Amino acid sequence: MAGEQQQPETELVLLDFWVSPFGQRCRIALAEKGLPYEYSEQDLLGAKSDLLLRSNPVHKKVPVLLHAGRPVCESLAILAYLDEAFPDAAGPALLPSAADPYARARARFWAAYSDRVYEAGTRLWKLKGGEARAKLQARAEIVEVLGNLDAELGEKEFFGGEVFGLVDVALVPFVPWLPSYERYGEFSVEETAPRLAAWARRCAERESVARSLHPPEKVDEFITLLKKVYGIE
Amino acid sequence: MAGEQQQPETELVLLDFWVSPFGQRCRIALAEKGLPYEYSEQDLLGAKSDLLLRSNPVHKKVPVLLHAGRPVCESLAILAYLDEAFPDAAGPALLPSAADPYARARARFWAAYSDRVYEAGTRLWKLKGGEARAKLQARAEIVEVLGNLDAELGEKEFFGGEVFGLVDVALVPFVPWLPSYERYGEFSVEETAPRLAAWARRCAERESVARSLHPPEKVDEFITLLKKVYGIE
Repeated sequence: MAGEQQQPETELVLLDFWVSPFGQRCRIALAEKGLPYEYSEQDLLGAKSDLLLRSNPVHKKVPVLLHAGRPVCESLAILAYLDEAFPDAAGPALLPSAADPYARARARFWAAYSDRVYEAGTRLWKLKGGEARAKLQARAEIVEVLGNLDAELGEKEFFGGEVFGLVDVALVPFVPWLPSYERYGEFSVEETAPRLAAWARRCAERESVARSLHPPEKVDEFITLLKKVYGIE
Repeated sequence: MAGEQQQPETELVLLDFWVSPFGQRCRIALAEKGLPYEYSEQDLLGAKSDLLLRSNPVHKKVPVLLHAGRPVCESLAILAYLDEAFPDAAGPALLPSAADPYARARARFWAAYSDRVYEAGTRLWKLKGGEARAKLQARAEIVEVLGNLDAELGEKEFFGGEVFGLVDVALVPFVPWLPSYERYGEFSVEETAPRLAAWARRCAERESVARSLHPPEKVDEFITLLKKVYGIE
């Protein structure tokens, strides 16, 4: 309309919450691809914003990626979307090339599996005192999950080989949570999954990772806050 | 080697269990694409086969698709693999074309969401007598899930529009479970999600679906068997 200044719709907006590992997946991927975006911090402990509720009416959760106003929800779907919608981004695709469908299937399998670290870890810190048997079970579970990931990584530098890719992006945001899981579960990642522990140190050196994650102490404070919110101990 | 008859390794083998809706997703997709395969029924209630344990050591579950001997696990990963590994199959791709990344993200979101039908339904039939509050919660959950799917479908013929695609394949195997869920949860799919109910009838007319699914009575007998196995009621 004449005389009116139309702002172009911001291309990419990420609705996120600072400590969300699922949001951090998206932040790391956006950084790896060199895609500029607007970060929109959401208040998840208070009232959820209209924008979040409108963008993700089904799950009402972060992360949500808005692309020219259209919402993409669920972190792994967002990672797939970034590969497909921005094939000419500065950084490479997260999935192996289309010429190797088997490697792609394998990466998708392990990226989905990485959620198990968070699920098992959450069971650990949600335990109430005295649940000795449940604690043994939860510890056995996270030890098994980390062992499976350690075996899949093997002697490779990253999960896909020499390239930091989908499984790395999906898994690495859980690294700062591990010290808390170790304390609540009384186990050692270094002993359980030594190759994974070394991988975590390699990943921490990447700028995309270092800038997206928080120190374990901050995560631990957040878990303590959540325990209060849930009335645990 | 001279004189020896080498059998070519069977191209595609599906490790599956007759009533598994996750395996049925793969059967429907293979049928839609016109890909021949060997079906290998697995005994999930007895001892699991060495082949299954070796092919899916992490989850030890069906379905597993063996392609020239290499295992692909997790039903949605198998569907993605079939699209990518067999681009020249007789039938079309399940995902929308690469030219529409947003439609692909949306299809992936709803395909993953369809698992919720099974999860909520399982909570319903696993209820023990007397858990009135848990029953109300589980019923509210499945009603919400079916309502969300009904809204996403809207007036379209299939979830992707006029073409039977990924979301349809992912969701339709749960249809024969719905009458049992209705009975355990005391609700009506027709009232809760009338457009979804009509979609289910349209899908049942497809040969790929009709040949892969079992009548609700068979599924209900299987649920009754599972309840006995789990010692419910």
